[in-house]
Amino acid sequence: MDEARSGSARAVGRLISLVEDASPLLREVAAALAPHAGKAEVIGLTGAPGVGKSTCTAALVSAFRSAGRRVGVLAVDPSSPFSGGALLGDRVRMQDHATDDGVFIRSMATRGHLGGLSWATPQALRVLDAAGCDVILVETVGVGQSEVEIAGLADTTVVLLAPGMGDAIQVAKAGVLEVGDLYVVNKADRDGAELVTRDLRHMLALGTRSADGWKPLILKLVASVGTGVPELVSAIAAHRAHLSSSGELDARRRRRIHDEIEILALTALRERFGQLPAGHQVDALVDRVLAGKLDPYAAADELVTELTQP
Amino acid sequence: MDEARSGSARAVGRLISLVEDASPLLREVAAALAPHAGKAEVIGLTGAPGVGKSTCTAALVSAFRSAGRRVGVLAVDPSSPFSGGALLGDRVRMQDHATDDGVFIRSMATRGHLGGLSWATPQALRVLDAAGCDVILVETVGVGQSEVEIAGLADTTVVLLAPGMGDAIQVAKAGVLEVGDLYVVNKADRDGAELVTRDLRHMLALGTRSADGWKPLILKLVASVGTGVPELVSAIAAHRAHLSSSGELDARRRRRIHDEIEILALTALRERFGQLPAGHQVDALVDRVLAGKLDPYAAADELVTELTQP
Repeated sequence: MDEARSGSARAVGRLISLVEDASPLLREVAAALAPHAGKAEVIGLTGAPGVGKSTCTAALVSAFRSAGRRVGVLAVDPSSPFSGGALLGDRVRMQDHATDDGVFIRSMATRGHLGGLSWATPQALRVLDAAGCDVILVETVGVGQSEVEIAGLADTTVVLLAPGMGDAIQVAKAGVLEVGDLYVVNKADRDGAELVTRDLRHMLALGTRSADGWKPLILKLVASVGTGVPELVSAIAAHRAHLSSSGELDARRRRRIHDEIEILALTALRERFGQLPAGHQVDALVDRVLAGKLDPYAAADELVTELTQP
Repeated sequence: MDEARSGSARAVGRLISLVEDASPLLREVAAALAPHAGKAEVIGLTGAPGVGKSTCTAALVSAFRSAGRRVGVLAVDPSSPFSGGALLGDRVRMQDHATDDGVFIRSMATRGHLGGLSWATPQALRVLDAAGCDVILVETVGVGQSEVEIAGLADTTVVLLAPGMGDAIQVAKAGVLEVGDLYVVNKADRDGAELVTRDLRHMLALGTRSADGWKPLILKLVASVGTGVPELVSAIAAHRAHLSSSGELDARRRRRIHDEIEILALTALRERFGQLPAGHQVDALVDRVLAGKLDPYAAADELVTELTQP
């Protein structure tokens, strides 16, 4: 714990592993972290596969490092049987930062958890935060649900798009609208970048304005060569200044902790279902529903009653 | 209810709306449906935006209708502010079936629910099932989590890919491996179809074999003109025969009902959090976590204790 706070990547890694494994030590660690968390700026990056999220993340890491800030990166991947989380391609892109003490990079798998972003992600953020990261980038592949969740975790959500990934309907269908504070058209030197930008502008104009008065920005980027990175860094800073002055930063952090407590409580309750003795009422409930003698709502009512009246 | 069972699309639609709105009438409806559900064959279709899921769904609907079977279609979309669920493009593709009494088509939004596939989806399946659909197609856009969930809902999961959607790493990253019973390369008349097929075969060879001994098949399709549709229908039938003879069909249905009861119970418990009086302990817990005086795990423990000891 002290090692992690003094910047040992290995110690931070061990703490995050405790989180991922839901280790029995976790509660102790969480209690020790509590006084130190709540300082880091959390930036979410999301977009469909192939838009260049990892390249963009790497470019942002370089920019924040140049400014002397300590950076954490959490890459939240739908897990694959081959990688245990991160894929080789991403690793290669991040390898410039692999030997930098001021950068901590970690991949997390989401499969099998309740919800697209692992319930462990907020806890891993908390570890990086308490370990002294000034900025934490959360990168996630996603269509639909995971963007909504990343928006819940991050102070600033950056949605990436790229030319050649589909027309305007695909943009809308990808479910990326409404959640972004910043929209970045990456690979902006390629054919079609203007078209994506125009479709995006059109879609955003149709959408609902965010409640806190922020108007989402559209930026162009060629992350692979660094074009547009300073502008992106400035836009992130501008959004953060807006959050601060509007009071939304505090509101988002409150909401985030509220959700965090709620998901942990639900997870604990869910574990109780699993810990019910074999041959228990849950199996009997399944039998009765299968036989058409009970509907699932009534079955759930019986289960809740039993759980809450021990 | 009786109207729905006799095939009134309007009555079925009203029942699904009750499900989506979590209407107070829902429990009554669910109880009435219970004796009639459990007969339909559920087929999941998933894949990234642009692979042609809707075209494939439409082609399958035609094939099942030709065989005299009643068909339900649930299109589960990440909702967008413009559509309330379904997008115009998909509607257009399905319009051939709009006047057919033997086909019921419904879009459902997932945003804001706990998990990528709405908790309402299993209930909507139950409505279609009880209304006499022989086959139900569940179509979902997805990367990652939603495929995993569709695999939980469906008897047979069909994963669609298409050439030009990215290289082998993108295939892996899309999180589609492991969940498919059948893999379909759509737009197989286009350049790159061979490459996608080869990459897919390679990835599947590396992956883990399914526990029930089924070896996922790879098929080629040009859904827009119907090429490969009879082969797809046969492969679905072959998979189902395998499920039946291996006992896995019953096992999957048991598991599905188990998950359904569990998610409804969790939803009910979650609602209790929301119904706690204002200024209640949850807010106090958030304050203490924000101040670094409590960690989220300890906060969740306090919440669970209070909920389960009324």
